[in-house]
Amino acid sequence: MTHLFTLDQWPDLHGTVAQAEQFKNNPLVQQALGRGKTIGLLFFNPSLRTRMSTEKAAQNLGMNTLVLNINQDGWLLEFEDGTVMNNSSSEHIREAAAVISQYCDMVAIRAFAELKDRAKDQAEQVLQSFMRYGSIPVVNLESATAHPLQALADALTLREYQPAHRPKVVLSWAPHPKALPQAVANSFVRMMRHQEADFVIAHPGGYALDPIITQGIPCVKAQEKAFVDADFIYTKNWSSFDSYGEVLRHDLDWMITSEKMALTRSAKFMHCLPVRRNVVVADAVLDSPNSLVIEQANNRTYTAQAVLHKILQNG
Amino acid sequence: MTHLFTLDQWPDLHGTVAQAEQFKNNPLVQQALGRGKTIGLLFFNPSLRTRMSTEKAAQNLGMNTLVLNINQDGWLLEFEDGTVMNNSSSEHIREAAAVISQYCDMVAIRAFAELKDRAKDQAEQVLQSFMRYGSIPVVNLESATAHPLQALADALTLREYQPAHRPKVVLSWAPHPKALPQAVANSFVRMMRHQEADFVIAHPGGYALDPIITQGIPCVKAQEKAFVDADFIYTKNWSSFDSYGEVLRHDLDWMITSEKMALTRSAKFMHCLPVRRNVVVADAVLDSPNSLVIEQANNRTYTAQAVLHKILQNG
Amino acid sequence: MTHLFTLDQWPDLHGTVAQAEQFKNNPLVQQALGRGKTIGLLFFNPSLRTRMSTEKAAQNLGMNTLVLNINQDGWLLEFEDGTVMNNSSSEHIREAAAVISQYCDMVAIRAFAELKDRAKDQAEQVLQSFMRYGSIPVVNLESATAHPLQALADALTLREYQPAHRPKVVLSWAPHPKALPQAVANSFVRMMRHQEADFVIAHPGGYALDPIITQGIPCVKAQEKAFVDADFIYTKNWSSFDSYGEVLRHDLDWMITSEKMALTRSAKFMHCLPVRRNVVVADAVLDSPNSLVIEQANNRTYTAQAVLHKILQNG
Repeated sequence: MTHLFTLDQWPDLHGTVAQAEQFKNNPLVQQALGRGKTIGLLFFNPSLRTRMSTEKAAQNLGMNTLVLNINQDGWLLEFEDGTVMNNSSSEHIREAAAVISQYCDMVAIRAFAELKDRAKDQAEQVLQSFMRYGSIPVVNLESATAHPLQALADALTLREYQPAHRPKVVLSWAPHPKALPQAVANSFVRMMRHQEADFVIAHPGGYALDPIITQGIPCVKAQEKAFVDADFIYTKNWSSFDSYGEVLRHDLDWMITSEKMALTRSAKFMHCLPVRRNVVVADAVLDSPNSLVIEQANNRTYTAQAVLHKILQNG
Repeated sequence: MTHLFTLDQWPDLHGTVAQAEQFKNNPLVQQALGRGKTIGLLFFNPSLRTRMSTEKAAQNLGMNTLVLNINQDGWLLEFEDGTVMNNSSSEHIREAAAVISQYCDMVAIRAFAELKDRAKDQAEQVLQSFMRYGSIPVVNLESATAHPLQALADALTLREYQPAHRPKVVLSWAPHPKALPQAVANSFVRMMRHQEADFVIAHPGGYALDPIITQGIPCVKAQEKAFVDADFIYTKNWSSFDSYGEVLRHDLDWMITSEKMALTRSAKFMHCLPVRRNVVVADAVLDSPNSLVIEQANNRTYTAQAVLHKILQNG
Repeated sequence: MTHLFTLDQWPDLHGTVAQAEQFKNNPLVQQALGRGKTIGLLFFNPSLRTRMSTEKAAQNLGMNTLVLNINQDGWLLEFEDGTVMNNSSSEHIREAAAVISQYCDMVAIRAFAELKDRAKDQAEQVLQSFMRYGSIPVVNLESATAHPLQALADALTLREYQPAHRPKVVLSWAPHPKALPQAVANSFVRMMRHQEADFVIAHPGGYALDPIITQGIPCVKAQEKAFVDADFIYTKNWSSFDSYGEVLRHDLDWMITSEKMALTRSAKFMHCLPVRRNVVVADAVLDSPNSLVIEQANNRTYTAQAVLHKILQNG
């Protein structure tokens, strides 16, 4: 069965991006493929882009959608095995996953990192449970450690703005008042392994990502030096992986500014959104013609559509 | 007008179950019937199976759906007549029901028992008001005293697993930490009146169901004795009807275990879900090949579809 | 680009009402026009009629719908420019509006007056921001100062019940326990400027509407005198515009009663709903054959459909 869990398991990244580009030109060309097929969209957390773009992708393919804010609309789920369920949770994931598999041909799930217990987040209990106890393909709408649909949209965006030369791409940490997951950064790194590019990660001390994911990729602590000659600045905050889930610094020294962008080769600015203005990035950068954030969001529809299309084809 | 309020009012139970079996084999055969027709799905309470299966049933029939978590998405409703509405409720059911009747061709409503005032729950104010003040067919998605769509799915499941001999069916009370309504049990009992089966209800002292509903049906307090030679064990917790809404015991003596199932004729295990593992039923029973709970949930789609189909046909 | 912000900007009120009347006779005649088109429905506030009727209008036109309770399902939005976003809001309206414009062909938005700061409400920050930063048509589902879809439905209702003579229409304030916006009253007044009718506004002292909107229209403080010979009584509560957002009186002297209705020329009673019985209006009036409130609600579908149709045509 074809799941989209992380990009490491996804069969053909470049084929998916190429398919997405075709859907961008002709979104309704495969309306017949999804007719009578149903996707369940389950949200444990808020969503704007992911919700709208994935629902639209499904509609473009002629599919029906069943959308559920699962903990409010449904029942509080239990994920532990062997427990005596006499507390707040009403339904075990074993039943929930098996039941949803009766109603849907595939299920897409958002379940963020809780950032309290690293081992627990790394275990990816929600998505793993749906893959284990369900019987239909599972699509990751951002899990504890991965956001592959975002990375696929980013890959399409990089492709659309590809320079004539081998590009330099910088993934730069940026400040944020709250503790955020590493999921977007992780998936961006995984995606970059498939690109012909010089790729550097820049982050302050204490903010190294999971070393298994970044193995072999240059990681530097000098942000401005990293920006020199860059063609793409991909910015994202994440909380500490070592001091798991902690916000180690509250200054704005790593905010993306016009001065820093001036060090680049007129680089494009990228961010997955939502973005906090004048904390993560200065207004002047976000509102500049070099900002690709809206195009990235637009590409979410077509890469999601390519993923659903692949899953529909594989049955 | 054809409402599905309780099974007592529903015209042809066996015909509906037979129709459901046909839809299970060919879900999209009546796509044209619902084209341009709209069902409103109104939830006063959480729902997973009922929400997804009924929405899917409507989509299978080509209908449009309008889904509303009514107290959050809409306005707090007033049900009392003649009141001066200067408190928290903003809209009277008379207007709400009449208005929704303008937008929908039928309306399906979930409104659980509150378990505080028996007479009030028995009055079924929400569904009765919609039937009285609305002008479209009303479908019960679990009301204070009845859950007929569940019982119809159970009837289909019983039919699919029908043994060669006249079966023995046991409805067994089971423990639960919270006070639950009697609705599922009530509808199961009503449905069993239409079956060729030996039917017994087993429950501890103080847990007799509404005597009007169970009239003439053997009710026993010896659970294990009831299980002997049973072909189906249908399990459900409910709070006390006599000491209305109370949880009278907190022990797990009535939990369904492998030892108890061993007393049966290799009985199938049934439950409407969600189910609390190791409180209502032991893991070993729920995870055994004799458990039909996922198939029951699956059948929800097709029996709902048969009900909507009947209502569409009757106009 | 054709927005429906207030009726002052809308191109052809009578043409829209005539189109709505056609859709009422034949709702599905333009199913092909919306095929593959998407409307986003964004709710910052509760909605029953507006939500259901607009979603249905879109479905009647063959459109896809993406419905979002934006502050719960999505991210808390920031509307101020130049702020350092290190507080509760996660996403700036500049990005949200631009992103939603990628997924939808038009967006319909409900964002009530907060009734705390008149200048802020008058600025209509939410809708103005979507019009400014988005790139798709915006439809007002009730904003701080206007509810044009309601007024269009009211225009259709007036047309359907048009007497042979030039009618007298009274907009009468009525009591309410909570502070309500002026939006519905404002739009009704704007709509009445397009009607051949004698139009009077009746309200107690302190409850004058925005003088810019009511300029030149007779406003009286003698409710009963205003009712004499009226053909239509349109009732609505609003909080004070002068003492902005305040509830200046708690008596029921201005409630609409049968005694007051007896002063009219057998007037039709109108209200946008939801309505508080025996506070705004006595049961006997609301339940009388002269009450048009359910028909008004029904007309919401067809006037919304005419608006979406016009926007689809204009591209």
